[in-house]
Amino acid sequence: MISLTHTPHSHSPNFQALVFDAFGTTLNWRHTMLTALESRAATHAHAAQLQRVNWRSFLQDWREAYKAGTREYSRVVVPLEDFVDVDTIHRRALDDLVVKYDIADVYSPVELDELTANWHSLSAWPDASHGLDLLHRKYKLATLSGAHSAQLVDMSRHADLRWDLVVGADMTGTYKPNRTAYLNTLNWLGVQPHEAAMVAAHANDCRAARSLGMRTVYVERTLEEDEPESITAGEFDLFIDGKTDIDNTVPTHRQTGFIELAERLSV
Amino acid sequence: MISLTHTPHSHSPNFQALVFDAFGTTLNWRHTMLTALESRAATHAHAAQLQRVNWRSFLQDWREAYKAGTREYSRVVVPLEDFVDVDTIHRRALDDLVVKYDIADVYSPVELDELTANWHSLSAWPDASHGLDLLHRKYKLATLSGAHSAQLVDMSRHADLRWDLVVGADMTGTYKPNRTAYLNTLNWLGVQPHEAAMVAAHANDCRAARSLGMRTVYVERTLEEDEPESITAGEFDLFIDGKTDIDNTVPTHRQTGFIELAERLSV
Repeated sequence: MISLTHTPHSHSPNFQALVFDAFGTTLNWRHTMLTALESRAATHAHAAQLQRVNWRSFLQDWREAYKAGTREYSRVVVPLEDFVDVDTIHRRALDDLVVKYDIADVYSPVELDELTANWHSLSAWPDASHGLDLLHRKYKLATLSGAHSAQLVDMSRHADLRWDLVVGADMTGTYKPNRTAYLNTLNWLGVQPHEAAMVAAHANDCRAARSLGMRTVYVERTLEEDEPESITAGEFDLFIDGKTDIDNTVPTHRQTGFIELAERLSV
Repeated sequence: MISLTHTPHSHSPNFQALVFDAFGTTLNWRHTMLTALESRAATHAHAAQLQRVNWRSFLQDWREAYKAGTREYSRVVVPLEDFVDVDTIHRRALDDLVVKYDIADVYSPVELDELTANWHSLSAWPDASHGLDLLHRKYKLATLSGAHSAQLVDMSRHADLRWDLVVGADMTGTYKPNRTAYLNTLNWLGVQPHEAAMVAAHANDCRAARSLGMRTVYVERTLEEDEPESITAGEFDLFIDGKTDIDNTVPTHRQTGFIELAERLSV
């Protein structure tokens, strides 16, 4: 494993930027959205009918629809006016999901809009805000996310996340793993690929970044990896298991990913 | 003058974002750059020859070259790979300026690069960092600047300026007053023009924003207005003279623009 810190043998004396995935790596979408789906159902006039829905399964399907949608739109780079954002992908998916889960007659279109809007106020992982503040002391910090920039602004204000540069998929006109998404972000940050690391809880994101010459930081997050059996810590420049208590003064809830990253980078 | 705060007669109940000009409005480029030019000259091997240069005049000419360059490139919107950024405009201008000021044989190309790099570490006006932190409590804050985003990241880290969204001219592919620069920024922020105000020390910037339906905040800054005789406070939604001491606990140096703006917006 190559060290990201400066050592006599380091190959990255100019390493200076960290680029973060949002959904899953920085934001704990699963907890926020499951809570939102369940509480909306529990207080609904048709609560009895909604009680029969497996909301964990419903949410996983919603997430899969996001992945399929962003994958589809990652094939091309389009101008802003043609860009299909995540709110649209999420909202369209609901029209199918309510049929699949047999609740098509329950939620009104306005209520489905409201459910979709919850993706703008996700909770961060408990270490994220403090970890980013630490990392900000030494590194330029940017997002590189499937979310569009307005959503990232809302999420970051909600969860108190400080970035030097917010890059939404709408700004690059495409989605990861399209190379334009990565390369435009690095260009806008003013760094070369080898001067930046991709921080993600998904191996495919790190692998796409590595293929362009970026360094990689893998941060394990509960349930985020689609193919955990394919992961070996050694394939990333840094591997953060994120479940070690390193600072009792910070509420960790057993999640310390970005704080541990700051420690590993000697911030 | 229309009030920007919520009143029974307000036409802007959803006003929610402030978009800031950088050079001159947020950053005090004149002070930083004059200091850099003079100190570089004073310590140079050819200090005697450089001493004859009127650096105030030199700097004003440099600034005019920036204005002419950005005006030229504002006529079209181009892809990122074709974008001509401010570092390039500033550097090219020096090749002419050293001839005009009869010092073409003094500075090496590397030294001219170094002089240009000073535009990345400008001081902010003394009220800017604290004022933005106050305004951030209530409003989404973005840049909309002739600077490219990497330069804005450097300047903002140097001067401790916290934004929700940094938009450089390279991201929009053009320069103000091209309407794409304003409209893309608002789109990325997730707001309509009437939900945002342009904050600038230059009437032409405010006027371009107003023509697109944005609200306007004019912040007076020393020497920034090209045509001060053409300005009337009443043409802007808010006019901040910025020279009133409103808080003795904050070092104002008689400049209080963004802090006064926060007061006027009841933050």
